[in-house]
Amino acid sequence: MKPHIRFDGASGTLVLLDQRMLPASEEYFYCRDTRDLIYAIQEMVVRGAPALGVAAAFGCVLAARETATGFSSPREGAEALDALLDALAAVRPTAVNLPRMIGRMRKIRQDRNPSTFAELVALWETESARIHREDQEVNRRIGAHGAELLVSGDVVLTHCNAGALATAGFGTALGVIYAARARGKDIRVIACETRPLLQGARLTAYELHRNGVPVTLVCDNACALLMRKGMVSKVLAGADRIAADGDTANKIGTYGIALSAQAHGIPFYIAAPLSTVDLRTPTGDDIPIEERPESEVTYFGSRRICPEGVGACNFAFDVTPAALIAGIITELGVLHPPYGLSLARAVERGGSKEARSTLP
Amino acid sequence: MKPHIRFDGASGTLVLLDQRMLPASEEYFYCRDTRDLIYAIQEMVVRGAPALGVAAAFGCVLAARETATGFSSPREGAEALDALLDALAAVRPTAVNLPRMIGRMRKIRQDRNPSTFAELVALWETESARIHREDQEVNRRIGAHGAELLVSGDVVLTHCNAGALATAGFGTALGVIYAARARGKDIRVIACETRPLLQGARLTAYELHRNGVPVTLVCDNACALLMRKGMVSKVLAGADRIAADGDTANKIGTYGIALSAQAHGIPFYIAAPLSTVDLRTPTGDDIPIEERPESEVTYFGSRRICPEGVGACNFAFDVTPAALIAGIITELGVLHPPYGLSLARAVERGGSKEARSTLP
Repeated sequence: MKPHIRFDGASGTLVLLDQRMLPASEEYFYCRDTRDLIYAIQEMVVRGAPALGVAAAFGCVLAARETATGFSSPREGAEALDALLDALAAVRPTAVNLPRMIGRMRKIRQDRNPSTFAELVALWETESARIHREDQEVNRRIGAHGAELLVSGDVVLTHCNAGALATAGFGTALGVIYAARARGKDIRVIACETRPLLQGARLTAYELHRNGVPVTLVCDNACALLMRKGMVSKVLAGADRIAADGDTANKIGTYGIALSAQAHGIPFYIAAPLSTVDLRTPTGDDIPIEERPESEVTYFGSRRICPEGVGACNFAFDVTPAALIAGIITELGVLHPPYGLSLARAVERGGSKEARSTLP
Repeated sequence: MKPHIRFDGASGTLVLLDQRMLPASEEYFYCRDTRDLIYAIQEMVVRGAPALGVAAAFGCVLAARETATGFSSPREGAEALDALLDALAAVRPTAVNLPRMIGRMRKIRQDRNPSTFAELVALWETESARIHREDQEVNRRIGAHGAELLVSGDVVLTHCNAGALATAGFGTALGVIYAARARGKDIRVIACETRPLLQGARLTAYELHRNGVPVTLVCDNACALLMRKGMVSKVLAGADRIAADGDTANKIGTYGIALSAQAHGIPFYIAAPLSTVDLRTPTGDDIPIEERPESEVTYFGSRRICPEGVGACNFAFDVTPAALIAGIITELGVLHPPYGLSLARAVERGGSKEARSTLP
């Protein structure tokens, strides 16, 4: 398989593996301008907080190239360019990586103040490639720290897809599993299918199976029973935004799993880069929760699953309170409660520039 | 719509609304012998504990007619007939109503000892029709008692289908809602879609919408978030078997909903006839949990949703511990903890004959 996020500098095209088509087929979606990428993010050709951050960074390059066709210099085209970046940053509200990586690009433009579009494009292309690499390295470090928490024989339940496909590569929650197995630990996975878009069935099962990790698919509503039956030893999930107090937004369903885990004394971990920590968001209640089209629930493909005239409610994320989280696995190690303190320290010590910029 | 369970005595045919086809089309499935009915139960043409009890009773008539073609008297054909009844009773293991109603038919045969098949068929046809009527009346009484628990403005979350389609008519959990609305209370419903077979989306949304009850469809994994947002005021679910201590088996997912309800201080009620109470099953751990084919999870219709080679785990039910249940709504009123006592008393006072027969 080719990389699932790849920028072709010669043609100025961002090439994305179309995750909507998995696992049935491996097709690529070509973003030639900002509008293409906005569509790709909205429709979930690309998804996952870290992957959205990487794609958005490359999206800034698309925006710069696009603006260059109508204006003679970045200064002259600043307003048009900013409008494109604003639109891109606003496509999906919950994952903080999307606006944050665009913020990082804006900052570099401000600091370096390139006088030509050629300079700006070169600057941003280099920075995007760096973000891409950084995310992969960060995932490897998350994996190494998280692997210490797992022991041979663990059955890890995971929700949605916090794998290679959700990041620049390797993955956060799944990265921990890959790393533990690379260290010789016998780890099996239970993947929740993750309604309505089935990222667990389509993406997590796909990438685990390709990588030789034993994986069993279950419906989301089976978690509590499986835990009661002693079939789950740990829970690992990713994150779309971690508030300053440790409350964590992730794919809808994560909160219910965390409640079940608590009831059964099963440790529930979040695995996420510090770039997903947003110290400017005080608590989970302050995280905006995206509502997606009800047709995602009322239709399965082209088939309507409920009567005409019945509507649906489709929140795409929920928030797991910090009190339910046994540890947050970051590139700097596993953070423990109270998260208000441990998160702020981690961000100060070694979080990315953009995470540090949110320090109080 | 014609009745969803109807016995045509002239032709000896049990006519079932094919619930697999809803809401797309209203088709009827004709059971001409026991094998047809076994298929219909296995494939969920008919489902829901009380409806299974009613269908099984009519199934005994089919079995008697079938046996009559090969034997000259019920005594002579007793072994063949019992083999058919045993097969029918064993099709699905969790709902107690299925073996129980067959037990009731066996008892009546034993008591009345008919000497001809014509007599046996007449006896059983009359008894089946009585069971059919009784279940409808019981549901009305459950509705009347349960309606007292609801107040105008309540938003009731329900799981799977515990409605008219799951019973002889009117419904248990949905019967409570119908009764409350008939008393002028403004009640809205949130229906969990209920993976993998989507009984909530296909059946509950269908019958509520037809009956003018405002209903919103959600994915099963959204419950905890909706509760946290204050969007749910009560939970009402049906039951497939209630153990002597009040532990209750119901569709997979019910237990997780009950855990979420407890975490948010939302009352969680079970609505079920006393015929679903099995005092011979001491606790929830003693209730057999059906495992259904993994293809129900790995395929959606004819479309595979996960990679080839990935397996699934598909328990069809889970058990909600009595401690999470605020009340069990029966035809004799709302039972409260400790259920060991209140269930035994209710069964003694006025439960059906077959429920009483399980009294210690």
